[in-house]
Amino acid sequence: MPEYKAPIRDIKFVMQELLDCESHYAHLGFEDASLEMIDAILSEASKFTEQVIAPINQSGDLQGCTWSKEQVTTPDGFKEAYKQYIDAGWSTLPQDPAYGGQGLPHSLHASICEMLSAANHSFAMYPGLSHGAIATIEAHGHDIQKKMFLPNLVNGTWTGTMCLTESHSGTDLGLLRTKADINSDGSYSLNGSKIFISAGEHDLSENIIHIVIARISGSPSGTKGISLFAVPKFNVNELGEKLDKNGVNCGSIEHKMGINANATGVINFDDAKGYLIGEVNRGLNCMFTFMNSARLGVATEGVAAADASFQGALSYAKDRLQMRSMTGVKNPEQPADPIIVHPDVRRMLLTQKSISEGGRALVASLAQLVDITHVNNVSQESKVAAEQRLALLTPIAKAFLTEAALECTSHGIQVLGGHGFIKEWGMEQLMRDTKICCLYEGTTGIQSLDLLGRKVLGSKGKLLNLYTDEISSYIKENQSSKGSSELCATLAEYVELWQDMTNNIAERSQHNPDEIGASSVDYLMYSGYVTLGFMWLKMVDVAHSRMLENQQDESFYQAKIKTAQFYFDRILPRAHGHAACLGRGAKSTMALDSDSFLF
Amino acid sequence: MPEYKAPIRDIKFVMQELLDCESHYAHLGFEDASLEMIDAILSEASKFTEQVIAPINQSGDLQGCTWSKEQVTTPDGFKEAYKQYIDAGWSTLPQDPAYGGQGLPHSLHASICEMLSAANHSFAMYPGLSHGAIATIEAHGHDIQKKMFLPNLVNGTWTGTMCLTESHSGTDLGLLRTKADINSDGSYSLNGSKIFISAGEHDLSENIIHIVIARISGSPSGTKGISLFAVPKFNVNELGEKLDKNGVNCGSIEHKMGINANATGVINFDDAKGYLIGEVNRGLNCMFTFMNSARLGVATEGVAAADASFQGALSYAKDRLQMRSMTGVKNPEQPADPIIVHPDVRRMLLTQKSISEGGRALVASLAQLVDITHVNNVSQESKVAAEQRLALLTPIAKAFLTEAALECTSHGIQVLGGHGFIKEWGMEQLMRDTKICCLYEGTTGIQSLDLLGRKVLGSKGKLLNLYTDEISSYIKENQSSKGSSELCATLAEYVELWQDMTNNIAERSQHNPDEIGASSVDYLMYSGYVTLGFMWLKMVDVAHSRMLENQQDESFYQAKIKTAQFYFDRILPRAHGHAACLGRGAKSTMALDSDSFLF
Repeated sequence: MPEYKAPIRDIKFVMQELLDCESHYAHLGFEDASLEMIDAILSEASKFTEQVIAPINQSGDLQGCTWSKEQVTTPDGFKEAYKQYIDAGWSTLPQDPAYGGQGLPHSLHASICEMLSAANHSFAMYPGLSHGAIATIEAHGHDIQKKMFLPNLVNGTWTGTMCLTESHSGTDLGLLRTKADINSDGSYSLNGSKIFISAGEHDLSENIIHIVIARISGSPSGTKGISLFAVPKFNVNELGEKLDKNGVNCGSIEHKMGINANATGVINFDDAKGYLIGEVNRGLNCMFTFMNSARLGVATEGVAAADASFQGALSYAKDRLQMRSMTGVKNPEQPADPIIVHPDVRRMLLTQKSISEGGRALVASLAQLVDITHVNNVSQESKVAAEQRLALLTPIAKAFLTEAALECTSHGIQVLGGHGFIKEWGMEQLMRDTKICCLYEGTTGIQSLDLLGRKVLGSKGKLLNLYTDEISSYIKENQSSKGSSELCATLAEYVELWQDMTNNIAERSQHNPDEIGASSVDYLMYSGYVTLGFMWLKMVDVAHSRMLENQQDESFYQAKIKTAQFYFDRILPRAHGHAACLGRGAKSTMALDSDSFLF
Repeated sequence: MPEYKAPIRDIKFVMQELLDCESHYAHLGFEDASLEMIDAILSEASKFTEQVIAPINQSGDLQGCTWSKEQVTTPDGFKEAYKQYIDAGWSTLPQDPAYGGQGLPHSLHASICEMLSAANHSFAMYPGLSHGAIATIEAHGHDIQKKMFLPNLVNGTWTGTMCLTESHSGTDLGLLRTKADINSDGSYSLNGSKIFISAGEHDLSENIIHIVIARISGSPSGTKGISLFAVPKFNVNELGEKLDKNGVNCGSIEHKMGINANATGVINFDDAKGYLIGEVNRGLNCMFTFMNSARLGVATEGVAAADASFQGALSYAKDRLQMRSMTGVKNPEQPADPIIVHPDVRRMLLTQKSISEGGRALVASLAQLVDITHVNNVSQESKVAAEQRLALLTPIAKAFLTEAALECTSHGIQVLGGHGFIKEWGMEQLMRDTKICCLYEGTTGIQSLDLLGRKVLGSKGKLLNLYTDEISSYIKENQSSKGSSELCATLAEYVELWQDMTNNIAERSQHNPDEIGASSVDYLMYSGYVTLGFMWLKMVDVAHSRMLENQQDESFYQAKIKTAQFYFDRILPRAHGHAACLGRGAKSTMALDSDSFLF
């Protein structure tokens, strides 16, 4: 099993050197988030994830969760680890002090989420889902609801879920059948069945607060009649005290490809008492608060998986002796050279490295934007800018980084050869666990439609233009700098093509709306490669500056520069393939009758 | 679970219409292989694979194999199904009548292997490995050895394996430590331990004949001192009768990502009696007989998996109602349209369809070349030409089709959304089972080095030129045909770039041999896309001709033409991405010190 080491040096590079979190936090009024505090927190988080969470990752996968009519049992060690997690106060870190939180920035919490997920994807999902429930209640709940649910969700003795999917209603939420009827006390009575509920039932917490979408009797059909509810497993009074069992039951748990230690349940609501969150029939809008942060959480899982797989593959590639280097023996004392001398092994490792480090920078920069949207002491203009950038880059981060992560975990197996296919080594679990990232919180296809259809074309190109203008300005300012002028010139070409491509699709889609769906995934992947290229360009500039400032850590900065060069040489050009594919339009994708696919 | 339907119509299209197997078999002297006989065999094979083999695929994955010191037990139903397999004579089909075979062509057998593997990858491996053992003994064994081993291997009461890998020796076979010492009776005594032995121990057959590489005491170190042996689990006399237990034991079986119903064993040889196959120290050469046919077998597994996943995804995409088509409601009686109306779902399905059907055509055309290498009544020139083409295209078929198949099985999951991640639906098993295809019989990286280093550059471009000349001649002859002139022009550009790219790498590698390894996988993928493009071009021409000849089955031929157009529009252009990546050379791949990958 690969031993997980939290990538503290790189996390600090991203937070402190690339994104200057010190000024960022000071500007937003996070007085407690000093560099010393951040260092201390990262250091504690690395110990906790390495020593408590990582060791139960493989055993959790092998054992899985167990369902019985009475309860769902998580694998050995999960309950104890979760207790340590909440006892140490990790669940309170980014939450509002009004409800027991520490009030630290979201972006600091995001870096801890990466470590948690890299150490143990299944475990990290339990607090991850609570986080979404908290955000929803905070943003849209009444004061009474906040008092009822938030203190225990924040301190982690209760956990949360999001209950959207039904068996016939996944992407198409408008088809949902779960019903809500108002009670005399103003609460609602919910009836229906939800599926694929992550952390839906388990033994880690004393209560589970389900955030549920349902249709109030008499509401319109389709998405315009969806309302949002908080439905506790055990009823809760207005003091936030746990009472008797509510009509919420877990009918079964799924047997899955991966994330076996996270219980994915069928949750049945039988006259379950629920509380309306936000306005009647505005559930989808409220849910999107939840959804956007969840999507960034999944992007983080992608980065985490790519990094964990990189670490496992790297360690093997340095140890495993097999064949000689083509340029002469590198390890004469031994019968063969370590496989890291072989170019194709390096290509796979550098793919993992450039995706995970580039992805970390992207996710961290988006997390800083989330910080801005959460505070009150910034201008409306800054908030709108942050929201617009998040709107554009969230689907890219979610879908591109998880597809790239799936590739990285596949490379992780390849580097180990046949050993990679054996469970014992832990590499195949990473691939199985990561596949879900391309599916949940909206599949890659759905993210791509969101990006191209809603965000780019839906804003008539405005959101994209704002971003490409920023890249172009950056390039203009930095193109004469010694270290990155060539990369600047290269990236400028990709940005130009991005715009041309967008105009071209916009034009075509006027005549045929299917042009959007037919181009969308290639478009998203193109966008992802370019976006990560921009992150690498900025990292190269920081690395150059740091080397000019002092000589310490030079090999770290040199590695950044060399990895960026690899990314620009060997990864970014894939975007040409995507551009060429989408350039051919929708015609041949739509030509075949449904009945002519198979004879 | 997706219900497997053997793609008989398409197999016949490939064998009979595209590759004119009737003339091919007549020319090679396979008198029994009439069209009627072929139809009857394919029809029986489809019934057998659909009704007997497919139904134990999912249960076999869930149950897996069980090890005990005494025996390895295959999942429920496997023993009975294997008995039916041999009772029906399937194992004898392509084998030499001298040993009880039916003497039918290899290429006919290959199409049955595809059905078997699509129905149940794990099951298909048991007879598949016997096939390799038979081929090796037939090609390199003495007459006495053939009498000892072949009759029972051919009738299937015994099975075979290939034992190459040791824990420290995978790709680098020269490092092997298994020893062989000659006995007074001319047999050898083997000592050592082999790992990852597929079908290494199980309860399907009465005896297992292991084909083992080992070093005879006193032989040179490295690959020049490797000899090949047949080592039976139970000793065998010269009449081919089973005697007492030999010193061959299964120490354990692996827990794997997939192919759980195939026992992957650690096989220990303790003074095990073995028989030298071929000459002393020429084991690697003998083994390559085995290896090349095994690699084509793995390519077939790729096609099979892509097809099985396509079938599962297609059936779901027609049934599942979710959202409305962007071009207007298609299914007004229902609350939503079937998801096959959505362009991105179609893109995934057509990717699966174009890869599986194109791959089927490629593998079948290579199987016909294997037919030529197996018979005596063709000119030496034809044989050499067949061998040269196989040498070039085997690594492409093996690595490209399995990587593409892995992508197809991933799409299969995506089409089902969250349901694809659930074991019950059977889609995730296909992805887990398929990942091994990118690893065993030489990883994708090894195939790529074989292609670029050994086959293309090692022949100073000759093998490639012979192939690209054939493509170019074909294009020249067909470019004025109404149906495919545009495709011809497109493919011609790719072929030209293929040559330019090759010359470029050849030049660069003179100064730096690492240029080969750094380019190899991108080079192989480029080659794969172009090779499949050539198959699609030929299929389009056949489809056009058939439509001119008669109107029957027009929708089938139209589907071929439309799928080809999709392939040329949306899949082939990916080759540009690979060309762009490899064009950047080895420098940035080799720049980073081993110690600077992670800080």
